Amino acid sequence: MNILTATHFSTAQISQLESLPDVHVIRQNDFQPKLAPTIDVIMAWSPLAAKILAGPNRVKFIQTSSAGIDYLPLAALDQQKVLVAHAGGIHGDAIAQSVLGYILDFARYITHPQNRDPQNFWQGRIQRRVLYSVVNKRVLIYGTGHVGQAVSQLLRQIGLQTIGVNHSGHPAPEFTETIALATSKAQPPVADFIVNTLPLTNATQHFFAADFFARQPQPPIFINVGRGPSVDTTALIAALKNGQLAGAALDVFEQELLPTDSPLWQAPNLLMTPHTTGTVDHVEDALFAIFYPNLQSFCQTGKLSVNQADLKLGY
Amino acid sequence: MNILTATHFSTAQISQLESLPDVHVIRQNDFQPKLAPTIDVIMAWSPLAAKILAGPNRVKFIQTSSAGIDYLPLAALDQQKVLVAHAGGIHGDAIAQSVLGYILDFARYITHPQNRDPQNFWQGRIQRRVLYSVVNKRVLIYGTGHVGQAVSQLLRQIGLQTIGVNHSGHPAPEFTETIALATSKAQPPVADFIVNTLPLTNATQHFFAADFFARQPQPPIFINVGRGPSVDTTALIAALKNGQLAGAALDVFEQELLPTDSPLWQAPNLLMTPHTTGTVDHVEDALFAIFYPNLQSFCQTGKLSVNQADLKLGY
Repeated sequence: MNILTATHFSTAQISQLESLPDVHVIRQNDFQPKLAPTIDVIMAWSPLAAKILAGPNRVKFIQTSSAGIDYLPLAALDQQKVLVAHAGGIHGDAIAQSVLGYILDFARYITHPQNRDPQNFWQGRIQRRVLYSVVNKRVLIYGTGHVGQAVSQLLRQIGLQTIGVNHSGHPAPEFTETIALATSKAQPPVADFIVNTLPLTNATQHFFAADFFARQPQPPIFINVGRGPSVDTTALIAALKNGQLAGAALDVFEQELLPTDSPLWQAPNLLMTPHTTGTVDHVEDALFAIFYPNLQSFCQTGKLSVNQADLKLGY
Repeated sequence: MNILTATHFSTAQISQLESLPDVHVIRQNDFQPKLAPTIDVIMAWSPLAAKILAGPNRVKFIQTSSAGIDYLPLAALDQQKVLVAHAGGIHGDAIAQSVLGYILDFARYITHPQNRDPQNFWQGRIQRRVLYSVVNKRVLIYGTGHVGQAVSQLLRQIGLQTIGVNHSGHPAPEFTETIALATSKAQPPVADFIVNTLPLTNATQHFFAADFFARQPQPPIFINVGRGPSVDTTALIAALKNGQLAGAALDVFEQELLPTDSPLWQAPNLLMTPHTTGTVDHVEDALFAIFYPNLQSFCQTGKLSVNQADLKLGY
């Protein structure tokens, strides 16, 4: 069984994978085109993986290194009966720390453009009353899965209040209050911050659009660490300009790589990071802890043991 | 007894002060020069307060709105037997939130200049391995008073490790480990972050200088939320340039207002805020909670009840 991997596993990790019966690991750097039809398992999606899947192949299991799987050719994979496992659960704590960083940046006036402008720097002091404590601030968290839970846990640890939003409003760990997606849109609760951690599906495509921003009872700060296309970028920019949003932090974008001429570059009160919040220390170890048991199970039974995605649901 | 105040107390708060026998409150906006010799108590230091003290006066009690009192004419006040109370204790939680914000900014790569540069934005993604989790990072906190304790408490709440530094290395609340100032200089412990919360005294003037930065066993990120003159700015800039420091965040400066031509504007890996971290929501309420009992006690006994400063020690 041939495993193609774009993940930088250590030599010891490769050895452990190859200690499974009949398993042979090919690092992406060692790949040659003639091997394409011989690949059984793909560890981490890449342009090369896409190319292999598009041609004659025998791929039967793909392990992603991301929590979301929206960027895979889901319909084709479903038709070809390829099993897909996501990496959900490993990014939560990292994303939560970034979300807290964004929140403190706004609350503590850390990254305000005046702070980088010698001529206006001390003017910020005059406006120091804009600073506030984050204790008891209300945060609406869209998505109550691994990432949403990790965000809620960290924020509550230091005294913020969280409300989770999911499809039906069902209870979820790390949340004392949850509401349904439809309710959140029809009767949005007062929130100081709104954090999106939802996967990208048909239901979440452009969920955060002009009507959503217009209905907020007070201007929140909007943080997107989920997927870019959940947000209507044009509407977001308008909401920042007309004051329906007090600010925004985006780690993901409708178009990635973000174009150099994107109008986002001119939007006010906007922090941007280049899809980096999910970065995990020693990510190879975290991925190995998911991939190894899955590969073991796949070799023995043809099934996966953890994190199997539903290709029809898209997560 | 005439009270001059620059603090924006509410009408209700002024009434409560004036319910004390013989107390009359004069808001700074209502001050007239002829009143100068009649002022007994000054609430919040200001250029006007300095002018009153410099002339014939009968001032006997000054309440500051800051934790530090280094900017007062301490020797003169001591000689004139003026009682001084500081506002220590009210800024700790706010400063702690700002410190956590700076730490997350660096750890989560939030404010990196690449994130504001359309041409290089997505390059940050290539370098995403520079992001790290703050859990278990080691933070050396200079000063184990109110502010140092608040910083330690907040950081430990989310999993960072703290070591307190004070004059003798005596134990302090919110710290599991403390070391002496001299030890920290002679045998500096490994630290990912160093936070200064020390008051400005003769002993702390330029404490953070070239020798201090040169002796660090690994390049830390240095955060100053104490007083500007505790740092040798020229040495700090050199340490940022030569890599002895991995980064720095400064809220206070040797010269305030920070000059527009300060070489700090050209220093790498430096975050600056305009002496704003101590900003407290509803600061008037917090100050009133210190000033009112002090004024009450002063009226009754001629003594203060809380936060009295030692003018010889300077804090």
